[in-house]
Amino acid sequence: MPELRKDPISGRWVIISVERGKRPADFVSPSQKRKAGGFCPFCPGNEHTTTPEIIAFRPASTPPNSPGWTLRAVPNKFPALQIHGELHKMGEGVFDKMNGIGAHEVIIETPDHQLSLATMPQRAVEDVLWAYYFRLMDLKKDFRFKYVLIFKNEGEVAGSSLEHSHSQLIALPIIPKTVKEEMDTAKQYYDSKERCIFCDIINQEIETGKRVIYENDKYVAVAPFAPREPFETWILPKLHESNFGPSDKSFSGLADIMQRVLKQLDKVLDTPPYNFILHTSAFKDEINDYYHWHIEIMPKLTRTAGFEWGSGFYVNPTPPEEAAKFMREAKI
Amino acid sequence: MPELRKDPISGRWVIISVERGKRPADFVSPSQKRKAGGFCPFCPGNEHTTTPEIIAFRPASTPPNSPGWTLRAVPNKFPALQIHGELHKMGEGVFDKMNGIGAHEVIIETPDHQLSLATMPQRAVEDVLWAYYFRLMDLKKDFRFKYVLIFKNEGEVAGSSLEHSHSQLIALPIIPKTVKEEMDTAKQYYDSKERCIFCDIINQEIETGKRVIYENDKYVAVAPFAPREPFETWILPKLHESNFGPSDKSFSGLADIMQRVLKQLDKVLDTPPYNFILHTSAFKDEINDYYHWHIEIMPKLTRTAGFEWGSGFYVNPTPPEEAAKFMREAKI
Repeated sequence: MPELRKDPISGRWVIISVERGKRPADFVSPSQKRKAGGFCPFCPGNEHTTTPEIIAFRPASTPPNSPGWTLRAVPNKFPALQIHGELHKMGEGVFDKMNGIGAHEVIIETPDHQLSLATMPQRAVEDVLWAYYFRLMDLKKDFRFKYVLIFKNEGEVAGSSLEHSHSQLIALPIIPKTVKEEMDTAKQYYDSKERCIFCDIINQEIETGKRVIYENDKYVAVAPFAPREPFETWILPKLHESNFGPSDKSFSGLADIMQRVLKQLDKVLDTPPYNFILHTSAFKDEINDYYHWHIEIMPKLTRTAGFEWGSGFYVNPTPPEEAAKFMREAKI
Repeated sequence: MPELRKDPISGRWVIISVERGKRPADFVSPSQKRKAGGFCPFCPGNEHTTTPEIIAFRPASTPPNSPGWTLRAVPNKFPALQIHGELHKMGEGVFDKMNGIGAHEVIIETPDHQLSLATMPQRAVEDVLWAYYFRLMDLKKDFRFKYVLIFKNEGEVAGSSLEHSHSQLIALPIIPKTVKEEMDTAKQYYDSKERCIFCDIINQEIETGKRVIYENDKYVAVAPFAPREPFETWILPKLHESNFGPSDKSFSGLADIMQRVLKQLDKVLDTPPYNFILHTSAFKDEINDYYHWHIEIMPKLTRTAGFEWGSGFYVNPTPPEEAAKFMREAKI
């Protein structure tokens, strides 16, 4: 019998379709291992082909937009939104619109074309997380922006057009619908129980253990109760934190668990395409008791079609308890 | 300057990214024209390879599950949900779940493997719409079901695993999130204005005309103000109707406009993959003043990635005004 499960944060339903039960090897997705050859605008020596860098981690002896860096953040060359201008909110009869103001940046995570977030040195992953944090802090000062979404598309089927490992960031003049819904639900839960819904979930998951993938001192990785995709994985700070940032001035614990999970995914699913998304509180109510920042990683193994579009339901052939077991047992 | 537009029904935002502006020929999607050859379980003569038919349009002289039919509806051989059993709603700590009870059916639209909804005789499209209606009426009698979602995946990238033209239907024990959100928003609008939000949109669209693709006596096809995908098209009854059904005991007007739009899409985008979804009121409040049934057709031309997943935003390179113009001017 399939099972219908509700994600308590988003309210979306997922059909865990055990009859269609799939083991990792059943997912045919092209391996995202790096190939050599071809021109890459993100490789050292080609800095002049990107937009000028906003920040870079590089020795003081090297000039901007030249080789020598270990990480660069640059404006997206084909931005979805434009940084200059006013919002000009307007109506058009029943409809609402505004200018497409925003920031769209690319974080080039490593100079080495062959490395991924899973295979680069842990110290480099820490730097990526610091870059996220610095850019968030900087964009927060721009009062036109209400939210900054940080995400990564790994692999072509996950929406990436360049192979060289990079993340993206989009600063938005409105709080996105999905973020607003999550924050509203968490707020309602807090108002009724005086507890953070994420903290409750974390406590229950650690207690039962069956969906826990990995934990270290500060963070836990779980297969969520109602995952949209097989092997969907969430990483959360164990103690309540409403917005993304370093823990005790360090990102080492977070880099450890992220890399661990990404290595496990690469092992279990043969370097799958994936998306990850950083979920954090909106600037306006950044420090609060009800929302709990986290990272959602979604391997891209299935196709969303008419049913998912029309209903907001997802059909997932792999129960999260099984996915978590495969992940825990992966020899990395 | 890109433009941010809000869909007034769903509340989702769309970035109309004019800088990335794309004309129809810029979309590289594999043409979905039918190929010959290979075994097809939906072709006449292979009726024994499907599950037994629930309904079929066939001469009285032909026995069930034999050739001679013009349309068949059968249970999906690999259903996402199961028809037999009780719901057993349960909690699991913070989480909610229930048995995966539902119906999952396939409507085989034509015996001819080479035809699509765009190319079959108009009379056959009317029969498809009658089949939808008969199945809806029948499944409504089952009190476990709160909603029936009717949809079509055309082409492999749109999620279809079989080429032979077919639609699907899933009966659900809960009202899907997207339907609930649409109905809630429409209800709020009605409560504040005593008008249906869809009727207001239709009147505005017909008055300005710039997003109208085609209209006949009873129906209008428009490119919505905030389309998620290039060339997204909605078909709506011009006068208020809360739930799907024939108009004056006939589906000829709806078949006419559906086929017209699908032929235009095939012409403009070279037989693209697409999804369509029938949006209609939930059984519980089927006849009402605030919701307006309609069909949403989404050509599958772009890829949703981390940004769309994380934000609920969509980036669309083709303004609907331009898409509507291309569609209107298509020589079909």
